[in-house]
Amino acid sequence: MTSAAGVRVVLVRVRNPLNIGAAARAMANFGFEDLVLVEPYDKAWKTVRSARAGETVLDRARSVERMADALDGCELIVGTTDGSKRVPELPLEDWRAVGASLPSAQTALVFGNEKSGLSVDEISFCHRLVRIPTTPGAPSMNLGQAVAVCLYELARSARPLPRSPTPPAAIDASARERMLDAWYPLLERLGAVKPGHDASQRRILREMLSRWRCRRSDERRLLGLARQIRNKFEKS
Amino acid sequence: MTSAAGVRVVLVRVRNPLNIGAAARAMANFGFEDLVLVEPYDKAWKTVRSARAGETVLDRARSVERMADALDGCELIVGTTDGSKRVPELPLEDWRAVGASLPSAQTALVFGNEKSGLSVDEISFCHRLVRIPTTPGAPSMNLGQAVAVCLYELARSARPLPRSPTPPAAIDASARERMLDAWYPLLERLGAVKPGHDASQRRILREMLSRWRCRRSDERRLLGLARQIRNKFEKS
Repeated sequence: MTSAAGVRVVLVRVRNPLNIGAAARAMANFGFEDLVLVEPYDKAWKTVRSARAGETVLDRARSVERMADALDGCELIVGTTDGSKRVPELPLEDWRAVGASLPSAQTALVFGNEKSGLSVDEISFCHRLVRIPTTPGAPSMNLGQAVAVCLYELARSARPLPRSPTPPAAIDASARERMLDAWYPLLERLGAVKPGHDASQRRILREMLSRWRCRRSDERRLLGLARQIRNKFEKS
Repeated sequence: MTSAAGVRVVLVRVRNPLNIGAAARAMANFGFEDLVLVEPYDKAWKTVRSARAGETVLDRARSVERMADALDGCELIVGTTDGSKRVPELPLEDWRAVGASLPSAQTALVFGNEKSGLSVDEISFCHRLVRIPTTPGAPSMNLGQAVAVCLYELARSARPLPRSPTPPAAIDASARERMLDAWYPLLERLGAVKPGHDASQRRILREMLSRWRCRRSDERRLLGLARQIRNKFEKS
């Protein structure tokens, strides 16, 4: 399993500065820091100002002229594609499987130009070629979103899932009966329940309260409401 | 497990039309179709023109004035947050766990305004409250990227992982020896290997070729190169 520190994001021939900002923001969101741009279309990429969250990443980012310079020091180079570009020798792999089991090696995750993706030439630098499992009708993702999804997958598998938070305990049976005792006479008086069917109607109400898994705070609130209605009745 | 058809994406008080387009594109990418906007800031959201991929989704999208109208027919309502807004009664859950085990029910996945997220009032419509596990230093994601990550997680768990593609078979030992036989004399002639250490030097080359897991196409190429070098020697 690779760590965020071991992953470099490489953007090749990006045209839209907003996409550089979006990639940097996703990197910040998921704890990645190493961003390299190859031949960015807009030389003024340093002025990119998407989300503030990505600023540190952008400050540290480098721009290089050649693909090889961007991959310096990387032992594993993973290219991304929407599947429209292939090279015969590199099988197209599902990012879910690759991302979840990336080995612990200095890795470059390479994204191509917005319109054309990675060229066949650029793909030849890669050890593995992956695609995010999009639908056949709309395979091509927005660049910033593709970066976010890829880094989410890495963060997803790197960090252990927290235990599910324990929901606040539901109130016990006797508290539920106290609620019924408080409400039933009011509902009778309001004409909401029919006289002579107490047992079945209370059962229906009890079942409903059980399904709601009422909590202590619900109990307080419902008893408070009942008290106010009762007070109003007593005054009138 | 829920299907894409059972999930509605609800965007509340979105300001930036680009984000609506980005959300629609991610929906198209992962096969989701039902988009509802609550009080979009820019009434001209229909003119949104992000990626073409999201066009069908945008054509079908509805804009409503009230949160309740957007949630019509939904049995499960899941709100998203960066964790900065909470309501006491709703535990904050990790989207990885929730997304991977969403029950099969008509579900609304609700995203708030870009700056402020969902309000406490809007969260009160939700049965569950989730956050994408971002880093504490940059918890807040770009809206379009958050939608993409959430839908990726749903598509991720809904679709079975394909079997890893089988890499083309490596050449067998005799093909490897043919390569060594073609190259070794050339390397000797080029002064790349020292006379008198044939066995150990061939072994080193063999090990290298094994590690490369050369394929049939590599073999053809390397034998071709050797042939050309040999021809050149013969001419000179």
